[in-house]
Amino acid sequence: MAGETIITVVGNLTADPELRFTPSGAAVANFTVASTPRTFDRQSGEWKDGEALFLRCNIWRQAAENVAESLTRGTRVVVQGRLRQRSFETKEGEKRTVVELEVDEIGPSLRYATAKVNKVSRGGGSGGFGGGGGGGAAPADDPWSSAPPAGGGGGFNDEPPF
Amino acid sequence: MAGETIITVVGNLTADPELRFTPSGAAVANFTVASTPRTFDRQSGEWKDGEALFLRCNIWRQAAENVAESLTRGTRVVVQGRLRQRSFETKEGEKRTVVELEVDEIGPSLRYATAKVNKVSRGGGSGGFGGGGGGGAAPADDPWSSAPPAGGGGGFNDEPPF
Amino acid sequence: MAGETIITVVGNLTADPELRFTPSGAAVANFTVASTPRTFDRQSGEWKDGEALFLRCNIWRQAAENVAESLTRGTRVVVQGRLRQRSFETKEGEKRTVVELEVDEIGPSLRYATAKVNKVSRGGGSGGFGGGGGGGAAPADDPWSSAPPAGGGGGFNDEPPF
Amino acid sequence: MAGETIITVVGNLTADPELRFTPSGAAVANFTVASTPRTFDRQSGEWKDGEALFLRCNIWRQAAENVAESLTRGTRVVVQGRLRQRSFETKEGEKRTVVELEVDEIGPSLRYATAKVNKVSRGGGSGGFGGGGGGGAAPADDPWSSAPPAGGGGGFNDEPPF
Repeated sequence: MAGETIITVVGNLTADPELRFTPSGAAVANFTVASTPRTFDRQSGEWKDGEALFLRCNIWRQAAENVAESLTRGTRVVVQGRLRQRSFETKEGEKRTVVELEVDEIGPSLRYATAKVNKVSRGGGSGGFGGGGGGGAAPADDPWSSAPPAGGGGGFNDEPPF
Repeated sequence: MAGETIITVVGNLTADPELRFTPSGAAVANFTVASTPRTFDRQSGEWKDGEALFLRCNIWRQAAENVAESLTRGTRVVVQGRLRQRSFETKEGEKRTVVELEVDEIGPSLRYATAKVNKVSRGGGSGGFGGGGGGGAAPADDPWSSAPPAGGGGGFNDEPPF
Repeated sequence: MAGETIITVVGNLTADPELRFTPSGAAVANFTVASTPRTFDRQSGEWKDGEALFLRCNIWRQAAENVAESLTRGTRVVVQGRLRQRSFETKEGEKRTVVELEVDEIGPSLRYATAKVNKVSRGGGSGGFGGGGGGGAAPADDPWSSAPPAGGGGGFNDEPPF
Repeated sequence: MAGETIITVVGNLTADPELRFTPSGAAVANFTVASTPRTFDRQSGEWKDGEALFLRCNIWRQAAENVAESLTRGTRVVVQGRLRQRSFETKEGEKRTVVELEVDEIGPSLRYATAKVNKVSRGGGSGGFGGGGGGGAAPADDPWSSAPPAGGGGGFNDEPPF
């Protein structure tokens, strides 16, 4: 993908992530991040909360399972992804558009927390990254095919280059 | 600060973070993140590693302690911070400039790992955020005073707004 | 403002910018940027357009007047700003939220165009930056008070530092 | 390219852009952007300039020619590109690394200036985007082959999708 709008959001999960699986077996997790800016009020000399930004997030495959296992309501996270707009029709026939984040990377913020990190062994099982075991690649006619192809945006190397 | 160059980097720690303390007792952690892009070679149909970007990072106070406790050599992280240039003179009297990242937020990436998150209790102890225990605020003549003031960029709320 | 979600979007104006003035005389320009990503289809070996992201943008004061004078429908732009969510009620009493961009910097892209740049003399007139002529600062009860305070995010220096 | 560090910088050109041509006829422009942050000093109630970030920038093909024709020393610009590190050896045999920006999009900022935009007709001539006339694509053994392939990052559509 070229020309996508890539953004980074820092905020808190509004609820536990929801994990589901596509018919072809790929995991997807959904959650909402609330990001609350703060303004410095020069008159009072205090910081005040601004209006929060609530951003619905999608993440796929092994990372989705990792998110579901690691994050809970209230966890502060750093999220990077691609901003997407999706149009749909309500039951009443009204057209609506929502803005969502297709997540590429997410981690729990270490600003107010520590984390015990456990590397997930790769290669085995369905939906594995960078290899895509059975059914990893969404067929062209899959209604879920908006999932990024395995090895596409997902082609990072987790080994340090030294 | 207005007009700073804010960037997000995804990569792996090249070594364990180094934790030190300023004379006034503020914690600071240093580490380097290696970010390796990948190119898709259309002829071979394969992804190839590009040249890595190595970025030296600084993080302050409680977050520094959390980083030192949570991250190790090789951990994949998502880092957001402000790009800074620092000029200095070598022992031979040559002028050099380095580019560094003043980190605002960092988390271990959940792409290939899970994490057990433990919220750090605040308010007590030295170096606490949003309050700055004993000696938290760097005095004006402190050679380390490039540390962002407690409650400055650090003034986030870690409670979800609902 | 700390903790805001800052993003950069590249796209085309869907219409000429609309310029208005607040009761206190501050200029504001509104426009929508359409950003269309492209996917490389490995099978066909061709790039295909993805679904466009349409982002409503607000820009204030002198910059608003400059935008209205310089940009037209179709112009490709590079925009940096803060992502905002705004809730409102429709005439039917339904609650809706829209995502908007509070623009800090914008310029016509030089990818497919040249530009003749004319510096605007500052200091005179209403709505001048970094000084704010008569009524520049929005009073607290002003319904338009979401305008960033003059000298806030706007406090850049346009002189090169050499 | 996946996994690149994409950043946006706002600043002023330190000198007029330098335009050159590769042996195969592709245009490349080089320039440096100085970005000066500002800190609000709560004690004095004034904004103070921070240390500037100087970033060397490269831009290719038609966009390079447009930059050379449109921008001059002092112009304030909005630049988006990929952060790159390049290692080289000095004449004295010392190893050095520099950080550079491979520019994808750039425009003159409309914060303090207006701009008269002129769309460049495409399709003709050497080095044209999105088609690459004679010699547009750098051959594999070209020492300048770090130029992004025509139609790669460059595959944007400049027509509004409506």
